[in-house]
Amino acid sequence: MPKYVYDFTEGNKDLKDLLGGKGANLAEMTNLGLPVPPGFTITSEACRRFLEEETLPEGLEEEIAEHLDALESRMGRRLGQADDPLLVSVRSGAKFSMPGMMDTVLNIGLNDESVHGLAKQAGGNERFAWDSYRRLIQMFGKTVQGIDGELFDAALEELKGGRDDLELDAADFQRLVTTYKGIVADQTGENFPADPYLQMRMATKAVFESWNAPRAVVYRRQERIPADLGTAVNICSMVFGNWGMDSGTGVAFTRDPGTGHQGVYGDYLQNAQGEDVVAGIRNTISLQDLEGIDKPVYDELMQIMDKLENHYRDLCDIEFTVERGKLWMLQTRVGKRTPGAAFRIAVQLVDQGMIDIDEALSRVTGAQLAQLMFPRFAKDAESAVITKGMNASPGAAVGKAVFSAERAVELAARGESVVLVSRETTPDDLAGMIAAQGVLTSRGGKTSHAAVVARGMGKTCVCGAEELEVSAAERRFTAPGGIVVSEGDVISIDGTSGAVYLGEVPVVASPVMEYFEGSGEVGDEDELVQAVHRVMSHADASRRLEVRANADNAEDSARARRFGAQGIGLCRTEHMFLGDRRRLVEDLVLATSSEERERALAALKPLQEADFTEIFQEMDGLPVTIRLIDPPLHEFLPDYTELSVKVALAGDRAEEKDRKLLAAVKRLHEQNPMLGLRGVRLGLVIPGLFAMQVRAIAEAAKAVPGAHAEVMIPLVGAVQELEHVKEEAQKILAEVGVEALIGTMIEVPRAALTAGQIAEAAQFFSFGTNDLTQMTWGFSRDDVEAAFFSKYLELGVFGVSPFETLDRDGVGRLVLLAVEEGRKTRPDLKLGICGEHGGDPDSIHFCHQAGLDYVSCSPFRIPVARLEAGRAALIRTGADTR
Amino acid sequence: MPKYVYDFTEGNKDLKDLLGGKGANLAEMTNLGLPVPPGFTITSEACRRFLEEETLPEGLEEEIAEHLDALESRMGRRLGQADDPLLVSVRSGAKFSMPGMMDTVLNIGLNDESVHGLAKQAGGNERFAWDSYRRLIQMFGKTVQGIDGELFDAALEELKGGRDDLELDAADFQRLVTTYKGIVADQTGENFPADPYLQMRMATKAVFESWNAPRAVVYRRQERIPADLGTAVNICSMVFGNWGMDSGTGVAFTRDPGTGHQGVYGDYLQNAQGEDVVAGIRNTISLQDLEGIDKPVYDELMQIMDKLENHYRDLCDIEFTVERGKLWMLQTRVGKRTPGAAFRIAVQLVDQGMIDIDEALSRVTGAQLAQLMFPRFAKDAESAVITKGMNASPGAAVGKAVFSAERAVELAARGESVVLVSRETTPDDLAGMIAAQGVLTSRGGKTSHAAVVARGMGKTCVCGAEELEVSAAERRFTAPGGIVVSEGDVISIDGTSGAVYLGEVPVVASPVMEYFEGSGEVGDEDELVQAVHRVMSHADASRRLEVRANADNAEDSARARRFGAQGIGLCRTEHMFLGDRRRLVEDLVLATSSEERERALAALKPLQEADFTEIFQEMDGLPVTIRLIDPPLHEFLPDYTELSVKVALAGDRAEEKDRKLLAAVKRLHEQNPMLGLRGVRLGLVIPGLFAMQVRAIAEAAKAVPGAHAEVMIPLVGAVQELEHVKEEAQKILAEVGVEALIGTMIEVPRAALTAGQIAEAAQFFSFGTNDLTQMTWGFSRDDVEAAFFSKYLELGVFGVSPFETLDRDGVGRLVLLAVEEGRKTRPDLKLGICGEHGGDPDSIHFCHQAGLDYVSCSPFRIPVARLEAGRAALIRTGADTR
Repeated sequence: MPKYVYDFTEGNKDLKDLLGGKGANLAEMTNLGLPVPPGFTITSEACRRFLEEETLPEGLEEEIAEHLDALESRMGRRLGQADDPLLVSVRSGAKFSMPGMMDTVLNIGLNDESVHGLAKQAGGNERFAWDSYRRLIQMFGKTVQGIDGELFDAALEELKGGRDDLELDAADFQRLVTTYKGIVADQTGENFPADPYLQMRMATKAVFESWNAPRAVVYRRQERIPADLGTAVNICSMVFGNWGMDSGTGVAFTRDPGTGHQGVYGDYLQNAQGEDVVAGIRNTISLQDLEGIDKPVYDELMQIMDKLENHYRDLCDIEFTVERGKLWMLQTRVGKRTPGAAFRIAVQLVDQGMIDIDEALSRVTGAQLAQLMFPRFAKDAESAVITKGMNASPGAAVGKAVFSAERAVELAARGESVVLVSRETTPDDLAGMIAAQGVLTSRGGKTSHAAVVARGMGKTCVCGAEELEVSAAERRFTAPGGIVVSEGDVISIDGTSGAVYLGEVPVVASPVMEYFEGSGEVGDEDELVQAVHRVMSHADASRRLEVRANADNAEDSARARRFGAQGIGLCRTEHMFLGDRRRLVEDLVLATSSEERERALAALKPLQEADFTEIFQEMDGLPVTIRLIDPPLHEFLPDYTELSVKVALAGDRAEEKDRKLLAAVKRLHEQNPMLGLRGVRLGLVIPGLFAMQVRAIAEAAKAVPGAHAEVMIPLVGAVQELEHVKEEAQKILAEVGVEALIGTMIEVPRAALTAGQIAEAAQFFSFGTNDLTQMTWGFSRDDVEAAFFSKYLELGVFGVSPFETLDRDGVGRLVLLAVEEGRKTRPDLKLGICGEHGGDPDSIHFCHQAGLDYVSCSPFRIPVARLEAGRAALIRTGADTR
Repeated sequence: MPKYVYDFTEGNKDLKDLLGGKGANLAEMTNLGLPVPPGFTITSEACRRFLEEETLPEGLEEEIAEHLDALESRMGRRLGQADDPLLVSVRSGAKFSMPGMMDTVLNIGLNDESVHGLAKQAGGNERFAWDSYRRLIQMFGKTVQGIDGELFDAALEELKGGRDDLELDAADFQRLVTTYKGIVADQTGENFPADPYLQMRMATKAVFESWNAPRAVVYRRQERIPADLGTAVNICSMVFGNWGMDSGTGVAFTRDPGTGHQGVYGDYLQNAQGEDVVAGIRNTISLQDLEGIDKPVYDELMQIMDKLENHYRDLCDIEFTVERGKLWMLQTRVGKRTPGAAFRIAVQLVDQGMIDIDEALSRVTGAQLAQLMFPRFAKDAESAVITKGMNASPGAAVGKAVFSAERAVELAARGESVVLVSRETTPDDLAGMIAAQGVLTSRGGKTSHAAVVARGMGKTCVCGAEELEVSAAERRFTAPGGIVVSEGDVISIDGTSGAVYLGEVPVVASPVMEYFEGSGEVGDEDELVQAVHRVMSHADASRRLEVRANADNAEDSARARRFGAQGIGLCRTEHMFLGDRRRLVEDLVLATSSEERERALAALKPLQEADFTEIFQEMDGLPVTIRLIDPPLHEFLPDYTELSVKVALAGDRAEEKDRKLLAAVKRLHEQNPMLGLRGVRLGLVIPGLFAMQVRAIAEAAKAVPGAHAEVMIPLVGAVQELEHVKEEAQKILAEVGVEALIGTMIEVPRAALTAGQIAEAAQFFSFGTNDLTQMTWGFSRDDVEAAFFSKYLELGVFGVSPFETLDRDGVGRLVLLAVEEGRKTRPDLKLGICGEHGGDPDSIHFCHQAGLDYVSCSPFRIPVARLEAGRAALIRTGADTR
């Protein structure tokens, strides 16, 4: 039989799996000799057994009884003892904190007898005792017995009859206890349990069961927390911060969570309990002022904070209570911090000798770095904030408020900046979202339609700003304080903080972005930039993965190099077919003889060659992987429906050219163009197309000394396809006298499944995980993100869009298989990734573990990729990357 | 060092891998004591080594010399011996016969000296000797030295100067030898090799090298013959059927390859060699007439044929030569036969006690059975045949000839039957092919665009009818004999035989189809039907795979049962949304409130319920797997482009309903509908849709005693999707009080990759290999088959469309993985396949090997599936299924 119960003296901070985060840290503090109210933790293992067997596991009750005996002996009081009762709190505490789970029941141990004993303990304070008793029934009824909390609140309001809490006396609370007991009997058909042991047992079971509360289940699905961890239960002897002015409760940080600077940061509230702080019954005072109120307690707290920071080697946050001048530690954990503080603190701790630089690197994340790279609104604009919503998709957007997608498209077409405001968005709003600078909604959370789609587009979004009343019909919204914003009024929204501003707020460039843009020069003046620089340098020194850029022109190539790219992993040649050159592609498509086709190709070649030459020059000898044309040719032609309408409306007056074009568009029209005539298929079906591109690459490479070209074939699904193209390409390269690797995208599931065969012809693989995700899931990204991804996130089908973070179970499995079998065939096979996942932290860790040689991403994501590649090399598995 | 050379006395028929088909059978006959001209075989192993090392493997020449020595001793003549030369033939002979490989060089051993010795052997026939010599130089020059055959032919024509072959005398041929030697010297820069051993060595190398001739490579790719088998080389002492009227050459069958009846079948040509038969220099005589010419030879041949058939226990075909009254066997093999004969012969051999019924089953194929099920044109219509093309896609089509796709569509729209005639088809002809009864082309082979697309559609097609001159401009074609067929003239084409008929030919139903349609009743009169019945009965008794049908209505269900279906594996509910019911689906799509949506669903439910009730009644307790709605809803609405044009043209006069509908169509329009909002996604996004369907199923099942329903969820890619739907479905089933398994299609690659997870929620898997193929290859079938499959078959990217036969390396790998991991999670998981592959012979063998429980296919393919499932259970691996 496993051990189900650990005294606080028996555990430690590394036992979070078993004792939960709260229990493990309570044990750690106990063992450090800090003043923690005695207690014990029932393990998550017990919870798991309970959930499986639907009854408390054998031996658990005996073990709890033993530990409770010991606790009672130590405290000199027994649970429910009428004259001098021991009271305990029952708190849930899983490995990961989880909304929707039962939180806390305080004051377990009170009943009609022991309430008098509590009054005696409190120096005859009857009011306090009865207030505590009614709080127990209220909390217990709500969280353990599942009674609607409104019933208790209504009874309290009725009792008050307009009076303030403080005007209630002991008799009032005693009456309230009677009323509350009536509610419990009414709602459950049984009396409120007077037996303190029963109270404790029921609360423990309720914590266990709350693991499977619907909100907790959904949250776990979304956050990808395993469903079978279970939660621990902490039983802790009660201490009271509300026994008078020599008592109180507070929270503290060991350093400033905003800047990382050392000092005293926290709040304190005299004569109060933790829940009162949350309820905001009075204003808290600064922790520094505690020194004047109770210097011994203050000094002790400072000592403890110092000890904790040295022990945890990190910023800690702390909850404490002072009971009649005696300090008690109720909780500690490694504290949350802003992205800037994360970098600063990491470097400060290195300088203080508390951690080494490896550890510092492991403590910052790419997500934090990405936030530091966005421009911010000026700080002095705080006064213009009219409300706050959820920070759904980062960035800073300024524009005229509009209240429909049509209007957004209309104004944007005139060159105006707009912010689309809506209660919530639907797939119909897509065009408006694309047209707008940013999106603001009053409903929905981070997985709402607006949030999901905006993140997918990289568009600034604040969602769920619930204080706003949006009226699309009246084209306006109302903010707190009666502020009315009508269509055309300028607003600003901060997708990083969730703030909504009235008027145009000046945007301040990010110093971190300026540092990267300036190719890594650092002055002495900016502590943050220096911290980023030190961490980045170590990441570059540590990482095994190379980082390349996706870039299609000289400008992007130059930026990529400034940001630290070690090559171009994806140069899309079809981007060179756009703009003025569409006419040439039209000629190619409309060609009816091989002469016409060859003429069209000959016209395209010098243009492509010039593009490649510029890129090779810019990259100065670094590898440039050039993908031959990928999309179907009809993408370069007018839209089928629009052109059909145009020609139909023109009737007999339709131009001959439009008629011919329509015939071609109709001929090339595809039901599912993503799965149609594109990529290598085009190359095999249209004579001369790939040959023209390869010749342009070869001649450009020959013209630029040291140019390092790699030719990449898209959409290969069978080695035979690649063999045909490779043979032709090698002949051309040999003719021009240029050497270049020839490889393939792995983006069709079959390519991954037959990678062992394909590696016989391919000198490198580049995983095109955008298309691979589309085909592995059967998701056309253009269609599905707007249509149902928010629903899928809400239902927990996935915790994050598989287009954002690589889906390890499905797509990742194909990648691993292709890596293994490709390398088996060709041990020196070069492996990279060029889908958008190449810039996503979690996906980068996966790429490192999978043994890829490089990741390639858009230039702006290169710093994040460098950082995470460095972290991946240090943290082998299960790293927290968000 | 392996043994590279086998004397004919050393091999046997089971050594085809090593000796090739021809060599193995020559050895077998030698060992049976039959009169085979002595010789030996150089193994395919030697060929493989030669191709790897680019030189004859060590020891091979010595081994050849030894065997040649022995041959020379036995024959009493030496190769090239001036006065009495031994001549040999050098023939290629791979495991599979392969067009494009070097075939044969005869008369090796002749030179300026031995030609005289040959004349002496031939009783002083100088003309014969010089003719043989010039034949050697010509064949050798062409096939071994790669000289253009036209050069030799031209020289011969010039020499003849209008005379007939027979008018040429010895001196003419001697002059021709000189001319030919000049051509060789001219073309190769070297003299024709006089050394017989060099001749033999060069011929052997040429056979080896022809393994990699371009046409052979393409053929292997298409036929999926491994590229590394290599070919054997047979060196055989020459015998001559052209030494006078007491000599001759012939071919024979041990029984009638058309009916299987025993008797004497074959042809004989006096004073001739095999190549003369092929060239058709004179008319052959019936083999039976040989009895009158040379009774001893005839009797010996009859004895030998009897011996061979008893030995091979099958119909054999034979090539033989008579040299001055002495019979020589040159080749034998198991003979080809018509589909009907295959069944008859198999059963006849059982009755004769030569094979058992298992063996009989293994000797017929589903492809043969399928051919027997098609209707045929009446036999007495043979006179109407105007030409023959390739039998590209089976069936019998009758209609007016049309010469453009537009015209085909136009006439078909008027209700006329048409046959589309064209030189070759292109993707632009697709609509015309769909509209036509059949397709006839004058160009292109079985992998041409017309052939591939027609087979994909199950449309009758004759292609490559090269005698036809097609003029699309003049809307007519000309057939041999000056027959002109103009647009509107009726023609008939037979896709099973390749015959093209003028006029309407009456179609005769297939007796085998009538047998199946009549639910298996057999009269005594029809030998073929009886044979089919016996083989089918044994297949049913032998197979482990169940066979189910894809059927969506009562009529198909009834047919499926007559054909032997053991249940319905795929009942598509969306087929019930078509026709009049589209209006109800429109209501569902246009619903703007949940009330409207519920009303629309409520209207659909009784219709669905009635459909299910009929099907359950028809299937009488057999399992019926019902798939919830799969396609995107916009499939039930008008086409986006057509409706846009209609509304645009109507302008202000457009109907309100059309405007609303257009808005909905636009909203639901998808870039890639195959990968969009469909299947389980619809079920999760549209409240009540799946619930309506499940309730209709449950209530129908409750109403029909013994009904056996299984609920199948389409397009699942993640177990979470299935969990949500299953929970709702189980609640409804419980409410109605009906039990039903709940399972899923495996048709998205991710479903296969996470089958272990999905099996936690699924009680059965049904592999939807149509969609799985589309997504695994990235092929939208609607788009790619017409656009480039013929090109891909021509290039050998695949040997058969992956939509016809399951692609084992890619799609098959996913299936195997899902079977293994699904069963690991849930050992009693039921597994089936319901893609079109469920009726394809090769794919059925795969399904058997993969351990599936059933295949499901269209009703008409059920007999084929039953047969092949039976064969699969007997023939474990590598069965020939075509």
